[in-house]
Amino acid sequence: MTVELYYFQPLGTNSGRVYLTLLEKGVPFVEHELSGRNFDHLRPEYLKVNPRGQAPAMVHDGHALYEGMAINEYIDESFEGPPLRPADLRERWRMRVWCRYAENDLGRALMMINWNRVVPNFMGGRSMEEVEKVLETVPDVDRRRSWLAAFKQQTPPEAIEESHRRTRAGVQKLEAACRERPYLAGQTYSLADIDCFNFCGFMAMWMPEIMNDTDTPAAMDWRRKVSDRPAVKEMRSRTPRMQPPAGAGTGGAVEASARAQAQARA
Amino acid sequence: MTVELYYFQPLGTNSGRVYLTLLEKGVPFVEHELSGRNFDHLRPEYLKVNPRGQAPAMVHDGHALYEGMAINEYIDESFEGPPLRPADLRERWRMRVWCRYAENDLGRALMMINWNRVVPNFMGGRSMEEVEKVLETVPDVDRRRSWLAAFKQQTPPEAIEESHRRTRAGVQKLEAACRERPYLAGQTYSLADIDCFNFCGFMAMWMPEIMNDTDTPAAMDWRRKVSDRPAVKEMRSRTPRMQPPAGAGTGGAVEASARAQAQARA
Repeated sequence: MTVELYYFQPLGTNSGRVYLTLLEKGVPFVEHELSGRNFDHLRPEYLKVNPRGQAPAMVHDGHALYEGMAINEYIDESFEGPPLRPADLRERWRMRVWCRYAENDLGRALMMINWNRVVPNFMGGRSMEEVEKVLETVPDVDRRRSWLAAFKQQTPPEAIEESHRRTRAGVQKLEAACRERPYLAGQTYSLADIDCFNFCGFMAMWMPEIMNDTDTPAAMDWRRKVSDRPAVKEMRSRTPRMQPPAGAGTGGAVEASARAQAQARA
Repeated sequence: MTVELYYFQPLGTNSGRVYLTLLEKGVPFVEHELSGRNFDHLRPEYLKVNPRGQAPAMVHDGHALYEGMAINEYIDESFEGPPLRPADLRERWRMRVWCRYAENDLGRALMMINWNRVVPNFMGGRSMEEVEKVLETVPDVDRRRSWLAAFKQQTPPEAIEESHRRTRAGVQKLEAACRERPYLAGQTYSLADIDCFNFCGFMAMWMPEIMNDTDTPAAMDWRRKVSDRPAVKEMRSRTPRMQPPAGAGTGGAVEASARAQAQARA
């Protein structure tokens, strides 16, 4: 039995959730780090593993699997180790609703904000023509377009503000859930916590004006509880922590107002 | 044990896939038809069942569940009857990748095309002011915006053309999968077939220029095989069939060219 994981280093969002699930289950795996900055995920040798040109991808006994949420259910069903899906079927249903929300809604909003900040730093010494040439090879049309818009800094401001709106709504949703029950799906730690921790965990660091001990105490407590898990500590020891780039914040007028409020409280 | 299902009649996409799953499993259920045209899903009594104001919703022993993909996994795990998820875990992974694609990508594209055609007929005798007043009560911001744009016929043409592009790509993807294996997940009929049949089945009827026996024979065979299932026949006997509205087609220049080709072959 061999498991190989191809993932973006430093670990974030999609790569992080599969990486953490393997650690939580205690599944040994061979690591293949990819650098987004070097476009490793678009190299022919990687496209042989995952023709979609996205990370993470997991190869189990020679069979390649992709898409984080589907991989994580597969891991929980295939390997021994602590179950990461609630035994109670209603809680399991709630877990899936959270995983889907984390991926489709909140995760996309955060990635969009993040790409638009970080991707321009990936230019390195390249000209825009060179970058465009590489991006032409991105198999997924949507991905190709959003990366190109981010490199050219042409994402419409309304689209970025919309992502900030979704992020703010997501923090509120997380706070409400954490007030109601110990973990997002219910009584036990599950793939929903793994997803949201990886997708949203950095909001507390990058966007302290919307996620902090005063405004969202239950979500902050949940985040600390998850951070204390041995698998999370192990993951953190293996990956450089991403630093908030200049200009981090929730954007626009709301950001300015929230910052002012936070400062007034401090 | 009681199961109640709230669904849009006539059945399509999201409502259809849960309805069909219950029939396939042989689960008896109490039916609550909602009319989108009458905004039944926004009435206070329904919002008590599903505060999101969306259909379908399923109430099992007093507990409300929503989101089609998560409901369907719940049904398969909770009730006896033929399993609708493959026993082979790799096939089960593939099932989830298909369900997610059907919902997030192809399903959204089809719904967008459909809304923009059908929703204006929902005006009835109402003024736009009355409609706007009702739509203000739609809990989900995205849903509210896209319905309003559809009512006002203000969805940008590029967005509609983008949905047509996704639909065309989806038919090709379906054809490729149906050439490779008997069912979408693998060797057995699964929730992936149920989803795609409900999400895409009507393409063959509404968009014959992109899905037909000449261009996509394997997908057409798969569609006939699924149509022959007793549960599908039962579902069809219980719901009026939606008729393609005037102007059905894949849109724009591509549509005209495909239609011409189809006619040339006929």
